[in-house]
Amino acid sequence: MTKPVADDAITNLYSSISPKSLVIADLGCSSGSNSLFVISELIKVVDELRQKFGHPSLEYQVFLNDLPGNDFNTIFKSLPSFQEKMSNQLGVGVCPIFISGVPGSFYGRLFPSKSLHFVHSSYSLHWLSQVPEQLENNKGNICVACTSPPIVLRAYHAQFQKDFSMFLRCRAEELVVGGRMVLTFLGRRSEDPSSKECCYIWELLALALNDLVSKGIVDEETMNSFNIPQYSPSLSEVKSEVLKEGSFSIDHLETFEINWIAYDSEVMNLPDVFFDGGYSVAKCIRAVVEPLLISHFGDAIIEEVFCKYREILSDRLSKETNNFISIIVSVTKKRMIMIDQDVHP
Amino acid sequence: MTKPVADDAITNLYSSISPKSLVIADLGCSSGSNSLFVISELIKVVDELRQKFGHPSLEYQVFLNDLPGNDFNTIFKSLPSFQEKMSNQLGVGVCPIFISGVPGSFYGRLFPSKSLHFVHSSYSLHWLSQVPEQLENNKGNICVACTSPPIVLRAYHAQFQKDFSMFLRCRAEELVVGGRMVLTFLGRRSEDPSSKECCYIWELLALALNDLVSKGIVDEETMNSFNIPQYSPSLSEVKSEVLKEGSFSIDHLETFEINWIAYDSEVMNLPDVFFDGGYSVAKCIRAVVEPLLISHFGDAIIEEVFCKYREILSDRLSKETNNFISIIVSVTKKRMIMIDQDVHP
Repeated sequence: MTKPVADDAITNLYSSISPKSLVIADLGCSSGSNSLFVISELIKVVDELRQKFGHPSLEYQVFLNDLPGNDFNTIFKSLPSFQEKMSNQLGVGVCPIFISGVPGSFYGRLFPSKSLHFVHSSYSLHWLSQVPEQLENNKGNICVACTSPPIVLRAYHAQFQKDFSMFLRCRAEELVVGGRMVLTFLGRRSEDPSSKECCYIWELLALALNDLVSKGIVDEETMNSFNIPQYSPSLSEVKSEVLKEGSFSIDHLETFEINWIAYDSEVMNLPDVFFDGGYSVAKCIRAVVEPLLISHFGDAIIEEVFCKYREILSDRLSKETNNFISIIVSVTKKRMIMIDQDVHP
Repeated sequence: MTKPVADDAITNLYSSISPKSLVIADLGCSSGSNSLFVISELIKVVDELRQKFGHPSLEYQVFLNDLPGNDFNTIFKSLPSFQEKMSNQLGVGVCPIFISGVPGSFYGRLFPSKSLHFVHSSYSLHWLSQVPEQLENNKGNICVACTSPPIVLRAYHAQFQKDFSMFLRCRAEELVVGGRMVLTFLGRRSEDPSSKECCYIWELLALALNDLVSKGIVDEETMNSFNIPQYSPSLSEVKSEVLKEGSFSIDHLETFEINWIAYDSEVMNLPDVFFDGGYSVAKCIRAVVEPLLISHFGDAIIEEVFCKYREILSDRLSKETNNFISIIVSVTKKRMIMIDQDVHP
């Protein structure tokens, strides 16, 4: 779904700037092979354009970013074969690709000023920099939920605004004028922040945890103090932050749907056919939240939580179809026009 | 020993170029804290100069390079505290330091053209890109040794020439005009490539391995086919490659000595006082060559090899003092003058 938008953005970028050295950053790369796949697709698009325009060879500098605790060693070990494959496709020695790992939070500066041409981020920006404060009244829930009181919805939204505007400010410093950014993350279509389309997957996990509370396995207070630092914004919330920050023009902004199970098979690199959707969705969500659950509840309850979660998911998926809503936004760094405040007409 | 040379090089660099964003690469960073210490010292020198000159704040981009199998995860986890410490020393937010890891061999291109200001490498360049070919006649030895035949000495020297000239060519592409490079590596003072000052440490390890051969624990043919990809060049060999490549002027070139035990305590971060020099030197060399030994001989013999090696080292160290010879070379990327071959006077 995101490929045409990303291809379009990098085509426009290369057509307007044609740098001798193209610098691409993937933010929230994780340790899987998805990032390298996206990078290879982007580079192929540029290389075709370069040949079409009759431009000389180009150097690519690629920065793969994630938090310092990410497993960069695994990515790095896969790079020689990736670089060899790309080199064979583009022509050996013609367009070298230099790849670096950049550990750090993308809610802060990661790169020197005006050093990037293209920023890509896939399914990372719905993660907040921290659990919002003032969630004391979110009892029985673990994220924004339909039973969350207004103060909780406001706290989550405020944290999103703070984080996303910081993200935009940092990238505005780091991108060159005319630089592009294509961001994909979980969002929602409804303006209601507690809409089922974004909250339901966590509400079902909360059901599993509450089941353990009712059995006395998990302490009620421990459950009440657990909240997931994730927010799924609406299109208008995203647009509003981009306009407020002011450095970017919006080229493309839309939502699309992915079935819970299809999303899973994509993210987990599993075969397409599943006999147990509950198992596969639980496995996918487990990969995402297990570290958060362990650090809050300890590891003793993990098997039981996900066993119950899988049971709940299988039951629901047998009765209904559920989709994740994704937002894709493509923006261009504007040329800033300085207005001299002292000059009057 | 290397600090005054490195400080001098970066002082001259900053005084002549004064970039807004200073890009430093450490090649062969390993996973220890030595690299970050050197980087912090270089940055402090530049920041003092910046303040002295009354220049505005500066951004630092630091690339830490080593082979893809290096443990980058450990370095990356230590970066947040390093960056915080540096930020406190330089003034929070004043001169941000952006750090990346670059996996790959420095005997190939690692960075885009003209993208680096300063290259540093400490105790890595004596490692060759591969074991030289034509070492069939180096029987009983594991590196250049006083009993190595001329063909072996020539093979090692030829591999050094090939590797070091490739290193220089790659860095010449990557450094800006006026960019500096400070390289420290094991070398020798004598023009004789089989001089004791560079070969003795490996000759003693060969004694330990040959002891296992005589006991029937190690197969003679396996021993004969093992060679370490290391070469300790002389000053004139280094100078000759720099002049041949032609992109760099030499600012500083000298040798210095470090006692085997002092070198060990520095490299291994051990306290200064040792009761068993043999133990500490064996431990240090083990950290360096164990992976090579395991991949050739398997891991079953490792304990016995190093037990014997320690015994040999302790005996020799009780009778004599041994030093490693280091070479430090500091160079500047020259401005190339293009001579138009068609113009005749």
